[in-house]
Amino acid sequence: MKISARNSFEGTISALSSGPVSAEVEISTAGGDKLVATITQGSVQTLGLAVGKPVVALVKASNVMVMTDGSGVKLSARNCLTGTVKKLAQGPVSAEVIIALPGGAEIFASITRDATTELGIKEGVAATAVIKASSVIIGVKN
Amino acid sequence: MKISARNSFEGTISALSSGPVSAEVEISTAGGDKLVATITQGSVQTLGLAVGKPVVALVKASNVMVMTDGSGVKLSARNCLTGTVKKLAQGPVSAEVIIALPGGAEIFASITRDATTELGIKEGVAATAVIKASSVIIGVKN
Amino acid sequence: MKISARNSFEGTISALSSGPVSAEVEISTAGGDKLVATITQGSVQTLGLAVGKPVVALVKASNVMVMTDGSGVKLSARNCLTGTVKKLAQGPVSAEVIIALPGGAEIFASITRDATTELGIKEGVAATAVIKASSVIIGVKN
Repeated sequence: MKISARNSFEGTISALSSGPVSAEVEISTAGGDKLVATITQGSVQTLGLAVGKPVVALVKASNVMVMTDGSGVKLSARNCLTGTVKKLAQGPVSAEVIIALPGGAEIFASITRDATTELGIKEGVAATAVIKASSVIIGVKN
Repeated sequence: MKISARNSFEGTISALSSGPVSAEVEISTAGGDKLVATITQGSVQTLGLAVGKPVVALVKASNVMVMTDGSGVKLSARNCLTGTVKKLAQGPVSAEVIIALPGGAEIFASITRDATTELGIKEGVAATAVIKASSVIIGVKN
Repeated sequence: MKISARNSFEGTISALSSGPVSAEVEISTAGGDKLVATITQGSVQTLGLAVGKPVVALVKASNVMVMTDGSGVKLSARNCLTGTVKKLAQGPVSAEVIIALPGGAEIFASITRDATTELGIKEGVAATAVIKASSVIIGVKN
């Protein structure tokens, strides 16, 4: 598989809850991180998802927010992964940030250039990648 | 809290409906706007969400579409906020648009440069920010 | 209607399933493609959606991923539309890719510049547009 989604996490389904239309899938990665995905119940059946099944979680860089100070607030976003800024690349309007997690994984975020300035984002700074569960795609190997 | 999401609206939960996996939350802001968020039922419980609770609604600029002519169509997107273009910044591929709402709030949208040309977006033009409910994150203060 | 969403597909609702909060809508386009959208049940009622109703499906370019090799994997993303890269425009950080589908439709994707290099994206290459159902907006004409 070759896909433009900058973020790809291999793991195993550790929890699965289903509704009539939506389903929530929790993936535990090899690096010790957890990711929650909201997908359609149709995909759960098509992909044969179940607890224990190995999967890959994909997230587009533009769906990742970066938080440098999470004090005083709790977010509905199910995925908040804290690490250290490893790289920052800036364009005239957009910027790409790479956050290295303690378990070894790296997360790519596309944010605005203005946000990188306001948040003081630079290499070595502590930062949290914030990802809504609805932005996570699940892939299974054939 | 310091987060890269360009859009942050303080308000109070004015309606809340829950399903087995998903929940829909309506936030009434101080400026008189309403925003609808779709989040997981898990987050409703973790954050202790209920009608009347003060919250902040966060939206990434890349999740905001801009509509300059909404005549003849109704959209499934739950959030359509109309105001006036206050600023336009263009890069070679991307562009950032700031829309000022009547109640005083400002909305940042990241769209393609081509779209700004086709839509005739410039300062002073009337424009509507279109946001899917699934793109809205809810935050609560500790 | 003039909206910044780069992707607009006219079609007819071919399937509709509803839950207490979410609903899944399948649209069959004139070009023979199918798109699945996850929207709120509130929008189904507001828009009067039903099987057979003509609608337009809107997708922001930043919500489209590009896959150049889908071998060995199945994705939860409900929309995987395969065609040929018609155009590639690159900025310093972002890039825009246009994929032409066999039925005549074109899909715009905003991805990172790095991804276009890694995936070998250039004009004439086969590519699949991958879109989560939660990224699709439904519009109906008045």
